[in-house]
Amino acid sequence: MKAVVVIGEILVEIMADAVGDGFHEPMALSGPYPSGAPAIFIDQVAKLGQPCAIVSAVGDDDFGRLNLDRLRRDGVDVSSVRIDTNRPTGSAFVRYRKDGSRNFIFNIRHSACGFLQHSDTMEATLSSADHFHVMGSSLSSREFVELNVKSALSVKARGGTVSFDPNLRKEILDTPGMREAMMQILAATDLFLPSGEELTLLTEATDDRDAVRELLSMGMEAIVHKQGAGGVQYHDASRNIVGPAFQVEEIDPTGAGDCFGGAFIALWLRGMETDAALKMACAAGALAVTRRGPMEGTSTLAELDEFMNTTKRLS
Amino acid sequence: MKAVVVIGEILVEIMADAVGDGFHEPMALSGPYPSGAPAIFIDQVAKLGQPCAIVSAVGDDDFGRLNLDRLRRDGVDVSSVRIDTNRPTGSAFVRYRKDGSRNFIFNIRHSACGFLQHSDTMEATLSSADHFHVMGSSLSSREFVELNVKSALSVKARGGTVSFDPNLRKEILDTPGMREAMMQILAATDLFLPSGEELTLLTEATDDRDAVRELLSMGMEAIVHKQGAGGVQYHDASRNIVGPAFQVEEIDPTGAGDCFGGAFIALWLRGMETDAALKMACAAGALAVTRRGPMEGTSTLAELDEFMNTTKRLS
Repeated sequence: MKAVVVIGEILVEIMADAVGDGFHEPMALSGPYPSGAPAIFIDQVAKLGQPCAIVSAVGDDDFGRLNLDRLRRDGVDVSSVRIDTNRPTGSAFVRYRKDGSRNFIFNIRHSACGFLQHSDTMEATLSSADHFHVMGSSLSSREFVELNVKSALSVKARGGTVSFDPNLRKEILDTPGMREAMMQILAATDLFLPSGEELTLLTEATDDRDAVRELLSMGMEAIVHKQGAGGVQYHDASRNIVGPAFQVEEIDPTGAGDCFGGAFIALWLRGMETDAALKMACAAGALAVTRRGPMEGTSTLAELDEFMNTTKRLS
Repeated sequence: MKAVVVIGEILVEIMADAVGDGFHEPMALSGPYPSGAPAIFIDQVAKLGQPCAIVSAVGDDDFGRLNLDRLRRDGVDVSSVRIDTNRPTGSAFVRYRKDGSRNFIFNIRHSACGFLQHSDTMEATLSSADHFHVMGSSLSSREFVELNVKSALSVKARGGTVSFDPNLRKEILDTPGMREAMMQILAATDLFLPSGEELTLLTEATDDRDAVRELLSMGMEAIVHKQGAGGVQYHDASRNIVGPAFQVEEIDPTGAGDCFGGAFIALWLRGMETDAALKMACAAGALAVTRRGPMEGTSTLAELDEFMNTTKRLS
């Protein structure tokens, strides 16, 4: 089976229990929940039985151990997660507002996972990848960008595949060299997984249809355009497939896109037929929003089967 | 009235609701509470109406604003609290164990308040001090040690006074130059405020009575030895005074020593008779342990009077 590798942040998330605006006074909170977009993604990959690893760092604290225990239990190879004795594990405080938007307080860039330290173990993990996933949120410094570009190109050079979830803010593209790095990654991408407006973030085209054509012309095999409760749209050279979302009660959407991506890539790598893989990945995304906590909603194959048998899809 | 200045960390504290060992799984938490030993200390000084300021830094986030709003509301001059747009406000997660001991996860050293940035405003604040308080927990880097030593010596040179709460772990004394810096601070100290075993932390003497004699011989006016629920022992050249604690139900002891110190110093600076000042400072410490949250238990003069009139002292 093909091994999936991702580089990026491992965090704990602390959630406000009640909706409202920010953290201006003491309130009821829940946590620490294991988190970090690439960590959620790779946990979902592992739960489907795919061999996989994450390159990251955590502090020498309970927050780091909580994440390592969870990832290890679910089958992720964490041998390339460095334990930093100097910096704490990263954290994100999140509070939902009434309108569904979120207020965050992050400690990521100056936390353990904000720093790369090259090692033989890390090189071995990266060299073992048959598939490399680039998570845009992890392109937080020039070093991370460079390592992602290098890893994507080297996986491609040895016949592997690359997926790319842009998951990044427009402002980041203004960092010197960032847009060029993104174009290098796009050129190496087999599966592109943008959400909503990210479809046109890196294209010259500003409307969706032209953007799809432009992206496919760069050599990628397919684009899976995530649209939250609106489901997904799959595009390749010959087909456009609409993947409707499942009808669920939304508890906590954080991490749903990462669960969708992890599931779709694992199923695509093992050659599952596209319609079936899209349906199952939509189920993974839907199940994720029904659970409180960003990584609490990752699913096994059996859980996805059970869910698909008992849940309606929106049309 | 004499102005009190302190340098040191401003944090938010996040508390586990249930006692237990560490943070190995998601749990009910409360926070963010304003915190940081020097911040709690100076908030108590301000609540007694003493002019005072803190030199520190917070992130450009709700955790920073929460602290600044609280300190400002209570009367602390926060003009020398820098807003760091790059680093987050410091944080401390705390969970009490059954035996009353605490498990912490800190993000301080790499947070906003872990870094000093000299400015004219800061120099003006430090120059305005009639009394300078050294908080041992804030001696976290050579720069902080140097600024504390320099500030203590310069307040003394212009006829002011210095207090020192060692509040530090023994291991810190092994840092090169640290013990020498502590001795410089001790030599400038008028009021020394150790807790428990800290009385002998910096002395050659290993028993309490000899340590008191050794410390007084260095030129300090008085030692107030804090002993938690055991009350306090005051020592100067001519007197030993026992200050019994008040009888309260302990909810959260964090910050009680800082409240005691802040109250005692404010009252001492305005020339209150020692017995009365000790009693009122004990009341401030006692009130602090009855409130959940480290800075929630600071008190005004009226609150202390009311409390002393209605609460028994242990003997």
